[in-house]
Order: sequence, then C-alpha cells, then structure tokens
Amino acid sequence: MRVGVLGGGQLGRMLALAGYPLGLAFRFLDPSPEACAGGVGELVVGDYLDEKALFRFAHGLDLITYEFENVPVEAARRLAEKLPVYPPPKALEIAQDRLAEKSFMQSLGVPTPPFRRVDTLEELGEGLAEVGFPALLKTRRGGYDGKGQALLTSWEEAEKAFHALGGEGLILEGFVPFHREVSLLAVRGLGGEVAFYPLVENRHQGGILRLSLAPAPGTSQALQEKAEGYAQKAMEALGYVGVLALELFQVGEELLFNEMAPRVHNSGHWTLEGAETSQFENHLRALLGFPLGPTAPRGHSAMANLIGVKPDFREALALPGLHLHWYGKAVRPGRKVGHLTLRRDTWEDLARDLPRLLALAGAW
Amino acid sequence: MRVGVLGGGQLGRMLALAGYPLGLAFRFLDPSPEACAGGVGELVVGDYLDEKALFRFAHGLDLITYEFENVPVEAARRLAEKLPVYPPPKALEIAQDRLAEKSFMQSLGVPTPPFRRVDTLEELGEGLAEVGFPALLKTRRGGYDGKGQALLTSWEEAEKAFHALGGEGLILEGFVPFHREVSLLAVRGLGGEVAFYPLVENRHQGGILRLSLAPAPGTSQALQEKAEGYAQKAMEALGYVGVLALELFQVGEELLFNEMAPRVHNSGHWTLEGAETSQFENHLRALLGFPLGPTAPRGHSAMANLIGVKPDFREALALPGLHLHWYGKAVRPGRKVGHLTLRRDTWEDLARDLPRLLALAGAW
Ligand SMILES: Nc1ncnc2c1ncn2[C@@H]1O[C@H](COP(=O)(O)OP(=O)(O)O)[C@@H](O)[C@H]1O
Ligand SMILES: Nc1ncnc2c1ncn2[C@@H]1O[C@H](COP(=O)(O)OP(=O)(O)O)[C@@H](O)[C@H]1O
Ligand SMILES: [Mg+2]
Ligand SMILES: [Mg+2]
Repeated sequence: MRVGVLGGGQLGRMLALAGYPLGLAFRFLDPSPEACAGGVGELVVGDYLDEKALFRFAHGLDLITYEFENVPVEAARRLAEKLPVYPPPKALEIAQDRLAEKSFMQSLGVPTPPFRRVDTLEELGEGLAEVGFPALLKTRRGGYDGKGQALLTSWEEAEKAFHALGGEGLILEGFVPFHREVSLLAVRGLGGEVAFYPLVENRHQGGILRLSLAPAPGTSQALQEKAEGYAQKAMEALGYVGVLALELFQVGEELLFNEMAPRVHNSGHWTLEGAETSQFENHLRALLGFPLGPTAPRGHSAMANLIGVKPDFREALALPGLHLHWYGKAVRPGRKVGHLTLRRDTWEDLARDLPRLLALAGAW
Repeated sequence: MRVGVLGGGQLGRMLALAGYPLGLAFRFLDPSPEACAGGVGELVVGDYLDEKALFRFAHGLDLITYEFENVPVEAARRLAEKLPVYPPPKALEIAQDRLAEKSFMQSLGVPTPPFRRVDTLEELGEGLAEVGFPALLKTRRGGYDGKGQALLTSWEEAEKAFHALGGEGLILEGFVPFHREVSLLAVRGLGGEVAFYPLVENRHQGGILRLSLAPAPGTSQALQEKAEGYAQKAMEALGYVGVLALELFQVGEELLFNEMAPRVHNSGHWTLEGAETSQFENHLRALLGFPLGPTAPRGHSAMANLIGVKPDFREALALPGLHLHWYGKAVRPGRKVGHLTLRRDTWEDLARDLPRLLALAGAW
C-alpha cells in the first residue's frame, strides 16, 4: 500500500516511521524542498493547489491523509474525487476555522468558552459587552502556536488588535480562567470502532506547547469519560476516520472545547514510547481498516518540545528513559526541531527528573 | 551524521528506522537492487568488493557498520582505512569462521561443545573417535539457518556428509543434549561502557529461528551473570563497539558457546517494544559514542518470525499487544519476510496467547 501525506513536516516523518513496519510506503507533498519528511520518504515539492503537483503526488497512491491542518480544503476535495482521503475533508474544513469548529462543537452540546463572530468594530463592541474583559481576539483562520491572537484587557487594546488582526474574519472569546489545559487523542477506524488515549496535560509558553504530561496527573475517570464523549460525538457527526485531537480547558471537573486538529498531534508524541500503540500507528491502522491497537499508557511520560534549540545529544541520552526525536531540520528561533520524551514506570520517578528534562529542552 | 551499512536486509532497515529519530541519515550497500532497506534509505547496488561501488557507498559517510555477517572482511578492512568501521573488522573475521569463533571463545575460558578442525577424512575419523556419535559436521564458513551442516549418527553418514560438505574447511562438533538454546545481546560503547539485555530463549525449526521468548522464562540471576561475563570477555578482547549477539546452549546451569554475530540479531527484535531501548538504537548509540540506553525489559515478549508466509494483517493486529514488522520483501518459501512481537505485562498473559501468535506466524 502506498500512502500519500499532504504536508511533509515532522508529523509526516513520524507517520512514515510508524508505517514502514506495517509494510507501507510513503510519499509527501510539501511546498518546501526542505520538508523534513523528505529525509525518510519520497517528497514531491509543489504547491497544494498546483494541478500538476497534485497529479504527480497522487499517481499510484492507494490513499491519502494529511499531517498539516492548513492544507487547502480544495486540494483535499480534488484528491478525494479520485482516491480515499482520510480524515474527511469536511473535518479539515471545520478545523481550519475557529468559528466553525466552536459552532460545530456547540451544536453537539459540547461546552466552549463564550465566543462570537467579529467582522466589524460594532460586532467587537457587542461581543465585549457580552463576554467582558479580559477577552481574546483571534483570526478565524491560519493562526497557530499562539500567532494571530491578542489578549484584550481594555477597549483601546481591543480596537488596536482589531485592526492589527485585519479587521475581519475574527472571533472574540471570553477568557477562561482554566486550571489547566488538557488534550484528548481519539481515533476512529474505517469500520466505526473508536479508541481513546488518556487525557494529557499540556503546558504552553509563548503560545507554543512546551510540555505534555501523560496521563494527565490526577485525572478522574469521570473527566476522562466526559472528554471521550465529546470526541465520540464529533467523530460520529463527521464520519471521521483517523486520529482526532481535541484541545480542552479544564475548569474544576468541567471541560471547555478550545480547538480540534484532524490529525496526529504534538500532545500525542509521548505515545511512541508511553503507549502500547502510538498515535501514528493507530492513525494508519484506522485509515487502512485494520483493528486499532491498545491505547493504554505504559507508565508515565513527559514530552518536552525542542523549540529552536539543539540539546547536547550525549547529555540528553545519558538520562535513563529519555527518548530523543530529532526531526532533521535546521535550527531556527521558535522552530520545533525535535522533542524529548521521558518515560518512567511511576509518576514519582518521572516527576523527580522533570527539571532535568526541561533543562535539556532549554525551558528551565 | 551519515551512517553507512554494509548489507541492506531487514536488520539494516530496522537500524535506519531506529536511527532517524536520532537525526541520522543512512546509506546501504547491497548486491541486490531488491534489498529491502532500500525502501527506507539510500541504496547503493554493488558487489562488496567492487572498488567503484565501495567508493560510491563510502563517499560522504561519517561511519560504517554492518547488518550482515558474511560481508567480505576485505571490504570492511578497506573501508576502515578511510572511515571508522564498527564493530571492528576483526570481530567480523572471527565470527565468519566457526572454528575461529569457537577457538577464540575457548581461549578466553568460555565453555564450548567439543569441536575440532576437519580437512581430511583422517581428521574426521580422529574427531569422531573423540566426540562420539551423534555429532555435527559443519562448514566453517557461509552456513546459516541450519544450512551447511549435517547430523552424524554413523560412520557411513559421516563419510557421505564429509564429501557433500566439500571435504575440507569443516568443523566437527560433539552433539550437545541441551535443555534449551538461549542468546545474549550485549552492547559496548565507544568509551568501553557495556550493557546487556536479559537472556532470550530461542526455539528453532528446520534450523531457522521461529520463536524467541524474552526474558527467557525461569532464568536465574547466576545464569544471566555467567552469560554477561562471557560476552564481556569477548568484547574486551576484541575492542568491540556495537551490539554483539552470543548464541548459547543451556545445559542445567551451564552455558556452552555456539555462535556469535557481530551485529544486531534476530533474537533481539523483541527489544523494539519489549525494552526501554531497542538493540537497534543501542547499536547506533554505541557507534556514535552516546550513552547506552536502559536494557531492562518492559513486561514479557514473544517474537515469532514470519518465514515464507504473509499473515492476514487484520487478524494479526486484532490481537492486543501484537506488533507487526513487515519487511517489504516478496514472499518466498523459507525466506524471513517479517516478524511479530507480542508484548504483555505478565508472563501468564503472554503464555496464554502464544498459540495464537504461533498460528499467525503459520508455525502451529
Ligand atoms: N478563550 C481562552 N481563554 C483562556 N486562554 C486561552 C483562550 N484561548 C486561547 N487561550 C490560550 O492561548 C493558547 C493558544 O490559543 P489557541 O486558540 O489554542 O491557538 P493556537 O492555534 O495558536 O494553539 C491556548 O493554548 C491557551 O493557553
Ligand atoms: N553442537 C551442537 N549440538 C547440538 N545442537 C546443535 C549443535 N550445533 C548446532 N546445533 C543445532 O543446530 C542449530 C543451527 O546450528 P548453528 O551452528 O547455530 O548454525 P546456524 O548458523 O545455521 O545458526 C542450532 O541452533 C542448534 O539447534
Ligand atoms: Mg491550541
Ligand atoms: Mg545459529
């Protein structure tokens, strides 16, 4: 089987490494000749909407998926006329628009922060009257890693941010005083069977995910089930196939939906060592109609992103239970160039070495 | 870092998959354009002794290793004039010759089956007088998976086998009524630090490894330490770097040395899921001068080879805890085309599903 992946970043790279043992071959489409998945599979360099590139990419493939959620939906739809494309392009379309994804989840009865559409200063004013300060103003599309959003604490800030963010296509959200951020990695197979990884606790810095703890310490069974229920509803409604990531705000025993990603997710990297079956393998199993693998955790894991820093590999690997994932990218400030996962049998054992992990990731 | 691998079979393939997360790139040299490592890395097709092929292969590499022990020692030595080649070519040379490896281990005080060199019918007669029947007559070089050897139970058989095996370059061994066969995977780093995986129990059929159980059930700490001592002696004597596999016969609480392989080994495949650090990663860590990773087992694993059979992937993956490794080769009778590893937290849990594992591998 030949699998095509739209996008050639680290998620694609790790998909391929998980798929080779299943006997799969991989081809990536990416606008950049430097795309790091090119180091482990065939790379077609071209624009996602270039007919010729799409043709060269699709030729001879058995199915297509994506590893990057800002692939133009149009490209996914065109390919879907000829080949199976999973997850469904509809999910891609919804996930690309913060207004659409929050409306979608709200329509399923899933709690979200208060939000409203903002295309004019007037709507911004109405919205702020509703949600109050502080609030967040975000572009509906294209934002990631905290980019394309502003925290508003006064009307002056609001007006400035409104213009800076383009003056339309925005969403205003009430600020949620969450206790912590968690994510759920869910997967649904071709035949409709589902599996869920344990909730993960995520800590951001400067809008970028720095650290994930899996399973999220101190999580109740009820909270886990609540999250699974939300994901299940979303996947059913979308006829979803593959891994779906939900980012959630935890407030007490409540969960508010923040974002979804119709793909494998940074907060699921720990599953490579910390679960019996990785998110990458389960994504592929789902697409191929194979039974899903066990998602139970093996011990406790902490995943730290390497953001614009290359650690000393010798020093890193000297920490027992540490697993290095270097993506083969050039190091640039703010760029995710790898991650480190520390796995231990007990939480106490893991917690003791968290400072060392963070120090290695340059985040201490 | 660019790593060159002499040989492009499944061991090379799995080395590359383990090395990509460490940021390594791989190039393979193999006489066959079908070599399955070509599916996951750059493949140079050429004879091991072809100057031009060797040059194309070595160009731009940082270090070289092998995944196939019948690479001509001459090729390894030539490359070693220009680049680091690990494990040392001396180890390759010894391991290629059953007489040399047994003499070498004997000289270190490691017990072996009784053996002697046979180049004439007269030596065969003297040998048989010494070791008695049954005995094994083997070619010193080139044998593998039980090929190139004969069981002798009478003088008539002996004479026939002597001629069938070429009439020289042979070794005669006393037959060891072993309780079981075990192997030890050892690894020694550039700086001389060593690590050992737990002993593995190996079951052969028709001379080919069918099943490995790890850790070998019912192994005493004393036996483990005995094996480690033997490996340590061998590695020190050779200035060894990388993974070394020792195949041993267990008789009560004694271990007799049978064979060594200066490379990652089929009986170590379980380490991919069943140990914190796989044999593949530790081999690379050793070569690169990185600290070795923990070799402790995670639960209990059983590895079954897929020999000339392609299982139903759907059925195989439906078994929780089963991990599929398909090498991307064409299926041919007697050919190793993949392996299945079943990992479970307890031995009881693993033992219960051994029949299913063997059935999937077509060996039940
Ligand atoms: N409504 C909100 N209330 C409180 N914090 C928020 C809210 N929306 C976003 N944040 C914070 O900003 C981070 C990034 O916002 P998010 O909408 O997830 O965008 P991105 O696509 O950049 O991840 C979140 O992980 C969270 O820490
Ligand atoms: N001296 C011996 N006594 C008993 N059995 C032996 C002896 N030598 C080999 N065997 C059996 O034959 C198998 C293959 O022999 P071995 O020397 O390991 O060759 P190969 O390179 O083909 O693995 C061994 O795994 C063992 O089962
Ligand atoms: Mg987010
Ligand atoms: Mg053998």
